[in-house]
Amino acid sequence: MPEDVDVVVVGAGIAGLSAARELVSAGFSVAVLEARDRVGGRTESREFAGATFDVGGQWIGPAQKRMQSLVKELDIETFPTYHSGESVVVVDGKRSTYRGDIPKLNPFTLLALQNAASGTNRLAKRVDVAHPERTPKAAKLDAQTLATWRKRNIPSKAGQAILDAGLRVVFGADPSELSMLWALYYISQSNTVDELIGIEGCAQESRFVNGAQTVSVKLAEQLGDRVKLSSPVRSISQTEESVTVSTDTGEWKAKRVIVALAPTMTAGITHSPDLPSARAQLVQRMPMGATTKCLAIYDRAFWREAGLSGEAVMTTGPLAVAFDNTSADGSVPALLGFSVGSLARDLAKLSADDRRTAVLDALASCFGPKARNPIEYHEKNWQEDPWSKGCPTGNFGPGTLLQFADALSEPVGRVHWAGTETAQEFCGFMEGAVESAERAVAEVSAALKSEKVA
Amino acid sequence: MPEDVDVVVVGAGIAGLSAARELVSAGFSVAVLEARDRVGGRTESREFAGATFDVGGQWIGPAQKRMQSLVKELDIETFPTYHSGESVVVVDGKRSTYRGDIPKLNPFTLLALQNAASGTNRLAKRVDVAHPERTPKAAKLDAQTLATWRKRNIPSKAGQAILDAGLRVVFGADPSELSMLWALYYISQSNTVDELIGIEGCAQESRFVNGAQTVSVKLAEQLGDRVKLSSPVRSISQTEESVTVSTDTGEWKAKRVIVALAPTMTAGITHSPDLPSARAQLVQRMPMGATTKCLAIYDRAFWREAGLSGEAVMTTGPLAVAFDNTSADGSVPALLGFSVGSLARDLAKLSADDRRTAVLDALASCFGPKARNPIEYHEKNWQEDPWSKGCPTGNFGPGTLLQFADALSEPVGRVHWAGTETAQEFCGFMEGAVESAERAVAEVSAALKSEKVA
Repeated sequence: MPEDVDVVVVGAGIAGLSAARELVSAGFSVAVLEARDRVGGRTESREFAGATFDVGGQWIGPAQKRMQSLVKELDIETFPTYHSGESVVVVDGKRSTYRGDIPKLNPFTLLALQNAASGTNRLAKRVDVAHPERTPKAAKLDAQTLATWRKRNIPSKAGQAILDAGLRVVFGADPSELSMLWALYYISQSNTVDELIGIEGCAQESRFVNGAQTVSVKLAEQLGDRVKLSSPVRSISQTEESVTVSTDTGEWKAKRVIVALAPTMTAGITHSPDLPSARAQLVQRMPMGATTKCLAIYDRAFWREAGLSGEAVMTTGPLAVAFDNTSADGSVPALLGFSVGSLARDLAKLSADDRRTAVLDALASCFGPKARNPIEYHEKNWQEDPWSKGCPTGNFGPGTLLQFADALSEPVGRVHWAGTETAQEFCGFMEGAVESAERAVAEVSAALKSEKVA
Repeated sequence: MPEDVDVVVVGAGIAGLSAARELVSAGFSVAVLEARDRVGGRTESREFAGATFDVGGQWIGPAQKRMQSLVKELDIETFPTYHSGESVVVVDGKRSTYRGDIPKLNPFTLLALQNAASGTNRLAKRVDVAHPERTPKAAKLDAQTLATWRKRNIPSKAGQAILDAGLRVVFGADPSELSMLWALYYISQSNTVDELIGIEGCAQESRFVNGAQTVSVKLAEQLGDRVKLSSPVRSISQTEESVTVSTDTGEWKAKRVIVALAPTMTAGITHSPDLPSARAQLVQRMPMGATTKCLAIYDRAFWREAGLSGEAVMTTGPLAVAFDNTSADGSVPALLGFSVGSLARDLAKLSADDRRTAVLDALASCFGPKARNPIEYHEKNWQEDPWSKGCPTGNFGPGTLLQFADALSEPVGRVHWAGTETAQEFCGFMEGAVESAERAVAEVSAALKSEKVA
């Protein structure tokens, strides 16, 4: 016999768990079905060298209002990302350091970069996130890649390479993979490029003392045994009256379902009746970005001692950017490197030993030879994680956003869709996950209330 | 207890069935597991008005050598596609007719189109299909969409629209969705654009008297009860010695597996161990094209009587092109319209009645008002078919072919990959399916022989 609930939530990431919590507060019975043996989705915290580190999403910014209030409410401690001192930029192997926001570059390159950033910000301001087709020149912007646009708008090769490094980390994808309209749509949700890539006052401002997964762990504690781990959903079958959700271990019958997964992760679920064509095609058209997070733990924060912030941008692989990632209390010094897009794919072709050497060499090119001798080295290749298949976000290539923006969140009968990819503020971030949950819960609550009345 | 075979083949389309037949001839034991209750994959033949029509792939060309010999061997009858008389082109609602290959257009438009076609053919000739990265300017071509390229190379809007109509049908996708390098790679496998879109001497030269599905039906007859229908594969688990394939109804244990599905269709299969990152990402990055095939059956072939071939190109939706699709013996006259890419997605938003009206109006704009009164009207929206999710082929957007060409066919342990998307000659066609089967069988045979020796 299937277990009866008002709402089944598929996925125990921040979207699914915050949706479930809201539904429970509103008096509905809920089951949260999670494929993994843990909660948190693309946030995952682990203990290394006696401190907590995030191998997944790890930052929160001041403009992310929903996450700020959730963190406060759950009594979760954050701390500022370390970024005192000089930052490093390595262009084609040539290293320079700088203070503040303006890298020490050839003035033409610098000017080209600043023009491109302000041009992008201007275009992003005009994007109509709720109705992307109303954006001026929407079709033209969606028919070209970000690579085509930035090649036309940044004459300097070095400038192009620096922009690539910064944007690759944002999307987990190369500019050649992305629709220019999608890039602008994404940027506009976070306001500006500067907000997306900056630290102080921006999206990388703060970290979680006990790791970002704490958010999900605390939400799950409140939900108790409503959360079922190791329960990958295999099928969702709807009738006019109800919907049945099947896992390998059991069945749930509900009035409504919220699927809180990245669109591509829903491809493994069989639907009855068959999905309408827009949804069936969307699922194939929003691949996850590629991100491998590389963490090197040291006995001393030698870069801080040398007056370096730990922040670096590199124009050649395997890393695109680096950050200081020392534990909250400063006791376990660490550097973090992001290998993303094609860089991550190239890195994945090497043996474990060669990957470690390549990543540490890249850190050494920024912070000196001491970077080659960590006390521990860890990586997480999110592409190999069968329940994420990539990080940080699903992306649209050209020719898709205008066709599929509606299908992202349009309910299919009794099935509603959440997850950060469906958000209209900070999609791709934890903030977007919470926003998407609010929207899906509003849809479901309204539907359940109107059914009660009828 | 799982059933033991040498090789499990997943998918009973032309790729899977021809692979299975070769393996059986070579003395191996085989099981073919098919999700549907029929064989044939993207070929599907149905009876309408007393004749057989194809709602899926339906043409075969003289350059498709493997299919030509398979058809001969299986004693399958083909007949020439009807194309006598004048063809129609409708540019922005303005209709004109022409004889032969050169449409009656503004001479500037015509010149631009001819230049674009010969320019494309020249570029396609330089593509190294086995090593796409060796193609001159490969990275540049892969970083832009086909839309970007054709906009730069065809000054005339009408010319762009005509090219779009032709190419949309080839890929089931708009030029804005496609990598220029992928388009060239695809064209180069079939030789030229002309070969891809032409009838006589080209890929649309002949049809199957009893429908294209006959090929699979006859192959399946030879395989007998080795073919298991209604058996969608849910998981593939490998050890060092063997591989276990699970469906809802049973388990098979084999030495090797050939997965003969489009890459995106493999997303629903859980792998143990987890897929390597290149394969896990590929599966998300080759969406199926969108094709809705619309068939109108008439009591008389009124267009033939008016001296028209039934061939038409339209620059506005819902159809991109039309063909005469009369039954082999001429007794059941029919017109065929293709709604593809964004046109198919727009069409799918209408009610069944409105879709019928829109499609018949489009046929009437080409062939006159009699087209509005068929005796029967049928469509197949392949996007809603849960075991194809689109047609005719999976496509690469920008920034992917260079990254994932190897992953298309690279075995993952004991799992080998077939399917027309993995072919190097006529990928996307039935011919490519047969080629892919040959390659996968060669891999598996070599592996099984070397294991026997060891």
